[in-house]
Amino acid sequence: MKHEQFLSRAAATMTQSAIRKMGGLLASSRDIISFAPGYPAPDTFPWDDFRAIAAELLGSRDGGLLQYGPTRGHRPLLDAIAGIQRGRGIDTALEDLLVTTGSQQGLDLVARVLIDPGDVILVELPTYVGAISAFRNAQATMVGVPQESDGIDLDALDETHTRLVTDGRRVKFLYVVPNFQNPTGLLIGLDKRHRLLEWAARRDVLIVEDDPYRDLYFEDSASEADVRPLKADDRNGRVIYLSSFSKTLAPGYRVAWMAAAPPLAMKFEMAKQAEDLLTGSLDQRIVYEACRRGVLDRQLPVLRAHYAHKRDVMQSALKRELGDLATWPKPAGGFFLWLTLPPALDADAMTARAIEEGVIYVAGEAFYVNGEGRNTLRLSFSAPAPERIEIGVSRLARALRAELAAPATAAAAGRPGAS
Amino acid sequence: MKHEQFLSRAAATMTQSAIRKMGGLLASSRDIISFAPGYPAPDTFPWDDFRAIAAELLGSRDGGLLQYGPTRGHRPLLDAIAGIQRGRGIDTALEDLLVTTGSQQGLDLVARVLIDPGDVILVELPTYVGAISAFRNAQATMVGVPQESDGIDLDALDETHTRLVTDGRRVKFLYVVPNFQNPTGLLIGLDKRHRLLEWAARRDVLIVEDDPYRDLYFEDSASEADVRPLKADDRNGRVIYLSSFSKTLAPGYRVAWMAAAPPLAMKFEMAKQAEDLLTGSLDQRIVYEACRRGVLDRQLPVLRAHYAHKRDVMQSALKRELGDLATWPKPAGGFFLWLTLPPALDADAMTARAIEEGVIYVAGEAFYVNGEGRNTLRLSFSAPAPERIEIGVSRLARALRAELAAPATAAAAGRPGAS
Repeated sequence: MKHEQFLSRAAATMTQSAIRKMGGLLASSRDIISFAPGYPAPDTFPWDDFRAIAAELLGSRDGGLLQYGPTRGHRPLLDAIAGIQRGRGIDTALEDLLVTTGSQQGLDLVARVLIDPGDVILVELPTYVGAISAFRNAQATMVGVPQESDGIDLDALDETHTRLVTDGRRVKFLYVVPNFQNPTGLLIGLDKRHRLLEWAARRDVLIVEDDPYRDLYFEDSASEADVRPLKADDRNGRVIYLSSFSKTLAPGYRVAWMAAAPPLAMKFEMAKQAEDLLTGSLDQRIVYEACRRGVLDRQLPVLRAHYAHKRDVMQSALKRELGDLATWPKPAGGFFLWLTLPPALDADAMTARAIEEGVIYVAGEAFYVNGEGRNTLRLSFSAPAPERIEIGVSRLARALRAELAAPATAAAAGRPGAS
Repeated sequence: MKHEQFLSRAAATMTQSAIRKMGGLLASSRDIISFAPGYPAPDTFPWDDFRAIAAELLGSRDGGLLQYGPTRGHRPLLDAIAGIQRGRGIDTALEDLLVTTGSQQGLDLVARVLIDPGDVILVELPTYVGAISAFRNAQATMVGVPQESDGIDLDALDETHTRLVTDGRRVKFLYVVPNFQNPTGLLIGLDKRHRLLEWAARRDVLIVEDDPYRDLYFEDSASEADVRPLKADDRNGRVIYLSSFSKTLAPGYRVAWMAAAPPLAMKFEMAKQAEDLLTGSLDQRIVYEACRRGVLDRQLPVLRAHYAHKRDVMQSALKRELGDLATWPKPAGGFFLWLTLPPALDADAMTARAIEEGVIYVAGEAFYVNGEGRNTLRLSFSAPAPERIEIGVSRLARALRAELAAPATAAAAGRPGAS
């Protein structure tokens, strides 16, 4: 039978994420060094704490631990999150908060609650592919705005908005990742953050602020003051704020959260109710205990040093191996280095050769909503050990130089990567 | 600021589930006996096994345990699920399978991948509210088909379908819960299952088969043969099959699965990717270990006896206390008793009085897509202890007799329940 005839219009356009595709590839292969997915380093996970917490919780035989529970989240965890928010300068009431099954669910809930087919969503160029997928599945039209070294270009933003409104389009929100953006690693300047809020108020546009990397600033180049969320200065409930424990505790728990004005938070809750009823009960309690017992607070400085060191290792290797061919903004936090290659190179077409050399990355085109970025790629330095980063960069350099000498055509390489 | 102006059309019609609302109520109150949500009994959870498994897994420091992973699910768990499916008579390839974050996510993925606004979905009258929410959020039109004592009325089904097609409507699928239906507890007869498959092929309609209670048949009145899934006899990939570990291991892990023809399974995977990337990694591995170590197999006969006993206790109490006023089909499995009250009674309006007496249930109207069922209600016998079931039924009887003597008007009672 023909199953395609039963698909919804949204499903007909669904594609597989470039990052996840690379993840699948990785699983199937031998000695491949992966700079592709933004995985945290599992050797940094607080294993002993997690084991002790899980054993203690399950030993208690407290029914609620493995039972259904409120869609909003486990109440003590919500209180802990409100505390974390206050530490970031965000005054947060319980009725603003919702635990989500990873920030990916937060993005999906935003899409479902705010987007009608054809609505325009403004995004940074480039932007996070997971957000692109979630917004595309709601049949949004995404329009990109270029970035400068201190983040999104405000003039271009306003011009883009004006043009869209003149064309009769409805712009629902701007999606931004102000801290160590995925994929570029860029940080929006503080002054620009204020002007962004003013702009959103003037144009009556919501802001969706995705902030998973905020705690992972590198102390040689950034501080708490630099990562102050837009949400901290949002007086009118214009900002929907998303953050997560995935990068600071572990992603396998799928525990993240969102904060929004109560009329929106209520709708996010209803949408989540129909989507998965609740986030894992045991997961929420383990994460809560990790907060309560100070495990999270102890992790943060360790992680900052860990990832700063890996960034240094990758940057040195890149300078040595590819300093003449690639440029990148130095990240002051997060997981990613964003490479711009000579214009003749097509990072997606180069993928096959890189795999042959034993290294993978995500071709940059996947992060663009306008087909640009063919000569860009994202490297994640978070998971591999420093020695592996060195070897991986050498492999990448070999692939790149070979590609420059004899470029694969996109067709010949089969264009396996980006969507 | 006015947040409502930013809502999508879908969000504007989202409402809170009647069951979850009752769950919230319960959390806030003192001595209330809850027959409302279909919670499994936490004293049946295999606590010692779970504790040992979690400690062992986390002690291994295996990175994958807490890392991101494939959207389809943890490979060994997928293999175990394929084995479970074979035990149910369903020949299942890996490419058919997807782990979901509870069966609620399965329902939501079905909605997103198959439903365009205005498409018609056929459902049983009454049907599971979680499915109603998921389908409504995709802006489906749901049309109900009455049930007989052996499940959905096939003549009415075909008449309904013919009428809709004549009216120019597109019918995408029929949603059924063949085993111990939520909310009625009904079991579709074996012969009727075959005729249902033939009907779907003749009318070229998909079937979504939701099967969470299959293992919980009561040995005095049903057997393995009676719960054979429609999917077991589906030769053309017409049936999308959903099942779950929530009722047999524990719901807090949020581990369930779906099986469908590969072209559909692929789209479900893409939709899930944008929805939550993956189901909890630790949760999936704990569930896998519970399968591998025989914990699940040991649980099933225990659970059958446990819930059969509670059904007996509730039935006896109902006969004694309400035998003159209420009728119900005797459930041969599952978690629920479905009461029909005298036509003058409005179960939703009676809620306030029931809470005063210290008992809650779900008013039946929430399970109907056509506004019927005001004099029906769902009682879940799964979670409360037998003594509490006895007391709860007495309280319910008091509320009911008081209500018959002096009916609350819907307006006076504030109609807190159903949507």
